[in-house]
Amino acid sequence: MLDAMIRARSVAIVGASQKKNEVGGDKLGTVALNYLLAHGYAGKVYPVNPKETEIRGLTCYPSVTDIPDDIDLALIAVPAKASVAVMKDCGAKGVKTAIVLASGFSEAGEPQLEADLIAAAKAGGVRFCGPNTNGMISIVGDMVCCTSMVCAMPRFNKGDIAFLTQSGAVGGSMLGTGNEEQGGFSHWISVGNEADLQVADYLDYLADDPDTKVIAMFIEGIRDPDKFTRACAKAARAGKPVVVYKIGLSDVSAAAAASHTGAMVGSNAVFDAVCRKYGVVRVEDAADLLPTAITFSRLLDKLPKGPNMGLIGPSGGICGVCADECHRFGLDVPELPQAAQETLKQFIPPFGALRNPIDVTQQIRSSPTGYQDTIRTVLEQDMIDGVFLLVTMVGEPRASFYCDIFTEAARATDKPVIIAWTGAQSLAAQAIPQIKRNQIPIYFSARGAVRAMRALLDYRRFLDARDVEADQ
Amino acid sequence: MLDAMIRARSVAIVGASQKKNEVGGDKLGTVALNYLLAHGYAGKVYPVNPKETEIRGLTCYPSVTDIPDDIDLALIAVPAKASVAVMKDCGAKGVKTAIVLASGFSEAGEPQLEADLIAAAKAGGVRFCGPNTNGMISIVGDMVCCTSMVCAMPRFNKGDIAFLTQSGAVGGSMLGTGNEEQGGFSHWISVGNEADLQVADYLDYLADDPDTKVIAMFIEGIRDPDKFTRACAKAARAGKPVVVYKIGLSDVSAAAAASHTGAMVGSNAVFDAVCRKYGVVRVEDAADLLPTAITFSRLLDKLPKGPNMGLIGPSGGICGVCADECHRFGLDVPELPQAAQETLKQFIPPFGALRNPIDVTQQIRSSPTGYQDTIRTVLEQDMIDGVFLLVTMVGEPRASFYCDIFTEAARATDKPVIIAWTGAQSLAAQAIPQIKRNQIPIYFSARGAVRAMRALLDYRRFLDARDVEADQ
Repeated sequence: MLDAMIRARSVAIVGASQKKNEVGGDKLGTVALNYLLAHGYAGKVYPVNPKETEIRGLTCYPSVTDIPDDIDLALIAVPAKASVAVMKDCGAKGVKTAIVLASGFSEAGEPQLEADLIAAAKAGGVRFCGPNTNGMISIVGDMVCCTSMVCAMPRFNKGDIAFLTQSGAVGGSMLGTGNEEQGGFSHWISVGNEADLQVADYLDYLADDPDTKVIAMFIEGIRDPDKFTRACAKAARAGKPVVVYKIGLSDVSAAAAASHTGAMVGSNAVFDAVCRKYGVVRVEDAADLLPTAITFSRLLDKLPKGPNMGLIGPSGGICGVCADECHRFGLDVPELPQAAQETLKQFIPPFGALRNPIDVTQQIRSSPTGYQDTIRTVLEQDMIDGVFLLVTMVGEPRASFYCDIFTEAARATDKPVIIAWTGAQSLAAQAIPQIKRNQIPIYFSARGAVRAMRALLDYRRFLDARDVEADQ
Repeated sequence: MLDAMIRARSVAIVGASQKKNEVGGDKLGTVALNYLLAHGYAGKVYPVNPKETEIRGLTCYPSVTDIPDDIDLALIAVPAKASVAVMKDCGAKGVKTAIVLASGFSEAGEPQLEADLIAAAKAGGVRFCGPNTNGMISIVGDMVCCTSMVCAMPRFNKGDIAFLTQSGAVGGSMLGTGNEEQGGFSHWISVGNEADLQVADYLDYLADDPDTKVIAMFIEGIRDPDKFTRACAKAARAGKPVVVYKIGLSDVSAAAAASHTGAMVGSNAVFDAVCRKYGVVRVEDAADLLPTAITFSRLLDKLPKGPNMGLIGPSGGICGVCADECHRFGLDVPELPQAAQETLKQFIPPFGALRNPIDVTQQIRSSPTGYQDTIRTVLEQDMIDGVFLLVTMVGEPRASFYCDIFTEAARATDKPVIIAWTGAQSLAAQAIPQIKRNQIPIYFSARGAVRAMRALLDYRRFLDARDVEADQ
């Protein structure tokens, strides 16, 4: 059923208009129509507005019932009170799915209006997203049915991360920053009030979705914990990491969430228990949600087998910072075997450090292949489960040289490699965007890099334990 | 005595050369000379090299003893073994201070060579920085005596933050990123092996330095704890916040630090106790060091009187995230007085939230002065000690409008205002750099903003307690 929404072949936009709103801007439906056209949707588009006959060169119909085509998805962009009648039309027309954008329902103290909307949808057999949502985007399908300002970005990167959000504004922010980081996305859904379809329904769908490998969620509260738990279990069985930020640590935020979408925030401890059981990766800082999901997307086939990390950097200082972060997050920095240290001695100046962390010193630049040989040697050690490449201050063209050797090393190994680039980004203006385009995970602090590696290890251990259970 | 180094009127650069090194690059002394000239040093510059007569248009002298002028600072850029003889020359000449760049002393298993260097300096009455250092930069004095690649940045912003680092590479990174964030700096010193001058000596000097208001330090270990403690006490009496990142949480990093500069890392607990006693702000994440110091520099005269925060954002989601972070870091988000809520009702759409956090909703953009009036109203409440301005997704030109009203509001109040901008930065390409140039603290996560406010509150409480003690 969600196929009709996420892979819609035809979209009706109810409320698109040539007229401006009170402050001279485009009406919500027109905003949505413009974004849909701008992002190159290949399906059929039908504006609906009884007061217009044409908009953006497309024939405009008085009602969805007048459209001479089957409609997979109706984007309902009229005020809250008018939405119920449009939903009835959708039912009469046999529209399969809808997105109700308007706010002014239960979140605004109008539960009866929301109940009327639900009743109309149910009577007509329409499944819907919202109300009080920014809509959805199927990035892989070039289908932008969304009013978030993030859609002003010229394009979204296609990829395998699906994103579910209970806050359209925060979700839009995250899609935007994730897109800037060259994360690749399959679908993005602002779930709104979840009057019909809930986070758990989308999660259940995405667990089967061939375009989705990683699922990221911004969660305020769970409406049906059992359904949600079942969906998490399904994603776990599919080996698709679910990365979650959940609000509601404080009474204030719980109250805010309740007034925002009407969702109950629920117990943190219960939520944590569900996460542990199903390998859900819960991030503490909202700003980590997308970077963590992106790292999973890039390294899901290279999860670390164990906690032993190789640290390679050009300074004792940055090596020490990263070693401390490993200690903090429960990763180990074992001394390398003597033979490996002997090998490294050929590449690294005498005042460097060979044990691990490996301080290649700034002087390694005087050796043409010393850096590459060092990285390869460390990655080849059986005892090493993953590698951090640490960078301090480096400018172009050396920065682009780092980009090339880091990319080559990361691609040539089946172990996870994460970069922590702590120097001024303006001096590496070519290299850093290129590393992102090359899909090599890069963080701008040692802590971020280490925390991400720890999340990969936790998920690997979850998968391993799951396989053991399945064997029994 | 440190005046002669940090405010040197004449600099000798020993080891500058027209010749290239083995791999075709500039020699260390030449790198230093080039940076010194590029950054516009107004004092006198004397290259020293027995094999040259002229370099970069400047007369080159065979030895420092041949320079026909008093020398405040000698930058010694010759190999380790040759440094001792140069130091003797400096003593003979009456050079007041020196920086010894070379590595290859105690950190490389050559303690005798370091002892010889110390003896030569002591015999000649020369105080020195290093060895094994990247040098120093007096940003307010346009004096770059430094070989860090960070000096490739076209200019450093002048300001009141002094930076001491036991890692030249990490310190260079941080100066670079801090400069990109429009932090303003007074001086930057890579202390190296501290064979003579120690962190505590510089800290003692900076506590009196009229150009310095905030002191940031990257620390691996403290050589003379008593002297360090006295310097912290002096900075505390001067009301100058000292912001520190200290390595050494793990055995591995402690070992790395010991091999790096020979410093003992010491006990974390003891270091924490010193921090508490003297109001030293210790950051947990190395990446927070410079942003925290910059925020102190900007808000030192607007420290929060108490923990009560006003949260203003365009979405329930981001308000909830920030409320959770306040809860995590021990800040309060009290309900606003009824009268204030009545006032806010005039500006904010009915589906917003007035209690605090204040969800102005995306619709507030339809009201020309609603945002300004909301911020002003919250700041005017006696009960509110500081304000977070939260941003999700916003593009230009609206982003620049935010920049203008945020700047105006922050400047008009004596309370701290910190921005958390969580939306895609590429859509606010004018606004975000402008906010930084306007010196308004901006973070790209709610957590970062809240953590910084908490540090400000802690320091305020430290100052208040200190004043009470002084009263008794």
